[in-house]
Amino acid sequence: MLVVMSAHATEENVRAVCEKIQSLGYRPHPIPGAERTAIGITGNQGAVEAGTLEQMTGVQEVIRVSKPYKLVSRDVKQENTIVRFPDCDGSFGGHTLGIVAGPCSVESRQQAFTIAERVARAGARFFRGGAFKPRTSPYAFQGMGEEGLKIMAEIRDRFGLRIVTEALDYESLDLVAEYADVVQIGARNMQNYSLLKRAGRLRKPVLLKRGLSATLEEFLMAAEYILSEGNYEVILCERGVRTFADHTRNTLDLSIVPAVQKLSHLPIVVDPSHGTGKRDKVLSMSRAAVATGADGLLIEVHHDPDRALSDGAQSITCDQFDELMQEVRQIAAVVHRTVQETMTQAVAAKIAI
Amino acid sequence: MLVVMSAHATEENVRAVCEKIQSLGYRPHPIPGAERTAIGITGNQGAVEAGTLEQMTGVQEVIRVSKPYKLVSRDVKQENTIVRFPDCDGSFGGHTLGIVAGPCSVESRQQAFTIAERVARAGARFFRGGAFKPRTSPYAFQGMGEEGLKIMAEIRDRFGLRIVTEALDYESLDLVAEYADVVQIGARNMQNYSLLKRAGRLRKPVLLKRGLSATLEEFLMAAEYILSEGNYEVILCERGVRTFADHTRNTLDLSIVPAVQKLSHLPIVVDPSHGTGKRDKVLSMSRAAVATGADGLLIEVHHDPDRALSDGAQSITCDQFDELMQEVRQIAAVVHRTVQETMTQAVAAKIAI
Amino acid sequence: MLVVMSAHATEENVRAVCEKIQSLGYRPHPIPGAERTAIGITGNQGAVEAGTLEQMTGVQEVIRVSKPYKLVSRDVKQENTIVRFPDCDGSFGGHTLGIVAGPCSVESRQQAFTIAERVARAGARFFRGGAFKPRTSPYAFQGMGEEGLKIMAEIRDRFGLRIVTEALDYESLDLVAEYADVVQIGARNMQNYSLLKRAGRLRKPVLLKRGLSATLEEFLMAAEYILSEGNYEVILCERGVRTFADHTRNTLDLSIVPAVQKLSHLPIVVDPSHGTGKRDKVLSMSRAAVATGADGLLIEVHHDPDRALSDGAQSITCDQFDELMQEVRQIAAVVHRTVQETMTQAVAAKIAI
Amino acid sequence: MLVVMSAHATEENVRAVCEKIQSLGYRPHPIPGAERTAIGITGNQGAVEAGTLEQMTGVQEVIRVSKPYKLVSRDVKQENTIVRFPDCDGSFGGHTLGIVAGPCSVESRQQAFTIAERVARAGARFFRGGAFKPRTSPYAFQGMGEEGLKIMAEIRDRFGLRIVTEALDYESLDLVAEYADVVQIGARNMQNYSLLKRAGRLRKPVLLKRGLSATLEEFLMAAEYILSEGNYEVILCERGVRTFADHTRNTLDLSIVPAVQKLSHLPIVVDPSHGTGKRDKVLSMSRAAVATGADGLLIEVHHDPDRALSDGAQSITCDQFDELMQEVRQIAAVVHRTVQETMTQAVAAKIAI
Repeated sequence: MLVVMSAHATEENVRAVCEKIQSLGYRPHPIPGAERTAIGITGNQGAVEAGTLEQMTGVQEVIRVSKPYKLVSRDVKQENTIVRFPDCDGSFGGHTLGIVAGPCSVESRQQAFTIAERVARAGARFFRGGAFKPRTSPYAFQGMGEEGLKIMAEIRDRFGLRIVTEALDYESLDLVAEYADVVQIGARNMQNYSLLKRAGRLRKPVLLKRGLSATLEEFLMAAEYILSEGNYEVILCERGVRTFADHTRNTLDLSIVPAVQKLSHLPIVVDPSHGTGKRDKVLSMSRAAVATGADGLLIEVHHDPDRALSDGAQSITCDQFDELMQEVRQIAAVVHRTVQETMTQAVAAKIAI
Repeated sequence: MLVVMSAHATEENVRAVCEKIQSLGYRPHPIPGAERTAIGITGNQGAVEAGTLEQMTGVQEVIRVSKPYKLVSRDVKQENTIVRFPDCDGSFGGHTLGIVAGPCSVESRQQAFTIAERVARAGARFFRGGAFKPRTSPYAFQGMGEEGLKIMAEIRDRFGLRIVTEALDYESLDLVAEYADVVQIGARNMQNYSLLKRAGRLRKPVLLKRGLSATLEEFLMAAEYILSEGNYEVILCERGVRTFADHTRNTLDLSIVPAVQKLSHLPIVVDPSHGTGKRDKVLSMSRAAVATGADGLLIEVHHDPDRALSDGAQSITCDQFDELMQEVRQIAAVVHRTVQETMTQAVAAKIAI
Repeated sequence: MLVVMSAHATEENVRAVCEKIQSLGYRPHPIPGAERTAIGITGNQGAVEAGTLEQMTGVQEVIRVSKPYKLVSRDVKQENTIVRFPDCDGSFGGHTLGIVAGPCSVESRQQAFTIAERVARAGARFFRGGAFKPRTSPYAFQGMGEEGLKIMAEIRDRFGLRIVTEALDYESLDLVAEYADVVQIGARNMQNYSLLKRAGRLRKPVLLKRGLSATLEEFLMAAEYILSEGNYEVILCERGVRTFADHTRNTLDLSIVPAVQKLSHLPIVVDPSHGTGKRDKVLSMSRAAVATGADGLLIEVHHDPDRALSDGAQSITCDQFDELMQEVRQIAAVVHRTVQETMTQAVAAKIAI
Repeated sequence: MLVVMSAHATEENVRAVCEKIQSLGYRPHPIPGAERTAIGITGNQGAVEAGTLEQMTGVQEVIRVSKPYKLVSRDVKQENTIVRFPDCDGSFGGHTLGIVAGPCSVESRQQAFTIAERVARAGARFFRGGAFKPRTSPYAFQGMGEEGLKIMAEIRDRFGLRIVTEALDYESLDLVAEYADVVQIGARNMQNYSLLKRAGRLRKPVLLKRGLSATLEEFLMAAEYILSEGNYEVILCERGVRTFADHTRNTLDLSIVPAVQKLSHLPIVVDPSHGTGKRDKVLSMSRAAVATGADGLLIEVHHDPDRALSDGAQSITCDQFDELMQEVRQIAAVVHRTVQETMTQAVAAKIAI
């Protein structure tokens, strides 16, 4: 914490601030400058309320110096966290990119299986599909619920895909944790601290989406909530933020990828489907995401997007996903990463039977 | 819904779109213009997925026309909703402004009583105090919990103040509903739809804060979630939105007051404490909020803000609150509203004993 | 300037940074903390390039402490600047609010005179009218040019109103300075530094509008450009900023009024017409602006807004302006300011002839 | 234009709006829906003032349908515009990417030559260097002026690099046009319409940067100003927009690349130096920009960024630029574009002499 005094502050003012700092149990370090004095504070646990000092006579500004996150920080753990799965060559944070693909909502067994087979053949190792949907309108389709989770469990068995799906609340969190491999916490719940804490007590990896107006620090602090309860397997996900720009549904902020990778050991993936909201921009932004060095992608794919029950406008077709995988594979090679070529032989053999 | 065709679209393209609209069960209305054709759609329930049409050849843009909110709209109910309380002359949405004041967090019985007496004497009819606090850091003070609620229930008995306090999740929602008069849903939970639905099944009024990056439509849709479950007593609250501006913690968007009042029958109050995050801007923005025609204020007051366990920087002192009430009372008169002069005689008599 | 070292920084790293600071000619002040060391820098003129240090091994962050503005700051001049005009009881920054009213564009002599008489009778002392218009489209009406300026000069003679009008470039700046009393620099030109410098060499007050995404510091620095050339009569104007919110054309950021008044001695007025872009929000936001303590208002008024050649949607009628003045006058009284009742007797007598 | 009536609107209201539309000289097309009526308008030139109608009884909203840009649109010209230069194999908009590199400011002949030789050897065909600098502070280094332009003209002769440099105002525009190959209009001047018009009368290509809070439509309209005066060679440039995110100086909005390419025939390049403001993010965002399909890059390079007179923090070193070119070349290949390997043989031979 640093207290900046105004140019008009008297020595008396400076002394009073120093005494206040001491009375709070910390140590003041006055630094007299040509125009004004600044006072460094040490000994605090990051918990000094700036307001206490900001309102004192002669104080111009109080600047916070230390960062509030701990467990997510490279200060605590320098090497990258890699989230792995038993009997699976897919991961997040490792050399191979984690590619997650599937429909916005699971709508039926047939729809889900059709899409799952296509994305598995294209090389994806993770299947996404909403069973519980956060919808802006209470009158919109809210997902198939547990029925949808069961379909996805079958998909895991059949296609070897690990399942990523969203939990909205306590009930769905418990259910999702039972069926899925990765529990997704959506953007609207990024600061639902009760849900984050409960997710922190799961023994399943959590994919945490950035809130629509979350700063980097808030994003990391949300992850910190999960880690602080003992769950260290968190995958961050950029999915676009809200700005004035109106040519996409959200503004995909790709620079957060290198920014997160500098400060934190956690993997970060990108969701260009929600990040743009427009089918015709998903391919170009997927290439861009991989080019920045992201640890994976989350892509909405539908075999018949015009009839999708939700988010049809941002879902790409299965053919477009094939094309995306080919392009992304080439971009990955440039940044010294890889993407699997197709489904594992074991799975292919099984399907062929 | 309106489909705008590009200038290059052929008659064939227009016909294909019209057929598609019919196949979806709606009725197309082509409007040929000098440069391009537009096609109106009727018969839909607001649920046409724009994406279906947006990707067709020759389509330039699809514009949604109808609004998704129903119950919150003046289309459904033209007169203002007034939220009243038994044996209480305070309300929200009526002629008299609803003034809610108190500390960010209830820290102790003594702290809460000291502040409650002061705000009651100044004319407030509602007491706010956090028992469950949403904190960015898992390591920060999280509130006193039920103990805090009990203290506030005592305050209601003693000072006649109705209690407004935040619920974070299912557990706290049930507890808060048991003790409080108004259940607050915070900005970070504005799109926590499970919580909203559960709040919609309460028989208590809900004060719903605008999310940090919520549009007017999203704000109204969040309220719609509550009303759709049968609870019609929702009080909206503007508390600042997130923008690039850095001279305040958030940007207080006062123009939403007349905007809400035009579209919806629900009352709307303003929280200039969170809206600015700066004690020295609370008075001026409180005056401004009342001048716009807001139905009330939510103010953080602390008898010793420098020692507050949370949000000290934005809490005003009890003396400042006295001053605020005097100023606000005068501004209210200009816009033909009133603010109570002091606590009711009954309460004053009781305290005096 | 403050350099914050990372938790992993070695003593060697700290020493290297201190030596670098000395080699740049400044003085380092290391402040060892529990977790990390911070290093204050003194002796610099605010010109240390943070990047030099930010890239050094072990450095986590560099925080700028001193503010770049000087002449606009209360550090240099504590008392308020009041912009006055000869033989005129209107001013900006004084006890009486500066009310500026008139059409978006001067469209004809008759239109301008009709509106001028109405706003003068209602108590305004300043007339605004665009002769040179910055339009998003090159195909839109661009203003009457010098012809419009001549009409406004006549209006000054007849109604005693001082003229405020915008200059877009060098040519129009020279022309506007010849005819007008206050030269307006629009939001889109707030960082047109060549124009600002040239305005700084005028002997006329300048009304400077905040840019659509200007921070408080950038706004003050733009004013500093004008003052640095010798023109100390600058009136700042908040006119809304660009955010994600879509219920108004811009988001009027009223909290900048107290923020400017804390840091700077310059007067600040508010333009709720551009700030909202909606006629039906101008009255409520005008009341709010005066309630915050603004030094004046800029209002678009048109006797027939439906036929206005520009910005009709945000112009209020003459009758609405009468109502606005009455409301604003009452709000002003609450914040110990005044608004003139009507035109001066001298003018009234003259018109009556 | 589409007028949406409220659910409560009477037939009388609808008729009045239709009559109003007719009286304005246009043709109304009422579309009765289940809940409300909408009225399409044809025959207008895009110039109907929405406000006229928006304020009428029973009108809920007026939606603009047609786009105001013409010459920049693919509606007018379907094939891509390619900006070429005589005796030069570099271009913008063609198969080969236009790579522009150089220091923020030209500081001396030696500095500029050192950097120019390095970027030419790495394969760049365009040299950027500021001679006239728009600085937030009037007290900061403002550039070398004409002296800097002369140095860059020498660089063209020696290294075969085409020169891209910014003009701030009329004087510098004329000077820059005399010496440079491409005239840059900076973000702060994107809506300086007088400057745009004057640039439209030049016979030199113009590189137009997106304003800090410009929408796609405003960006295209700014280009329209230049084209409307007869200069069709405009290169658009994304350089980051202003948002709440604070981990970079601006938020680089890469999705505007495919968005522009869909609507307009003009080339678009990306400036990741200003777009991030952080040296350590320039490489990753350059790769991403090329991966989206951008037509080129604008990169700040300095042989000794720690001593740069401006923007040192975002300039990369010459060695980093070599690395960037290698990475970008590989990414370009994936999207079927190329980047030159090194300077032309003719230039290499000349330098060797």
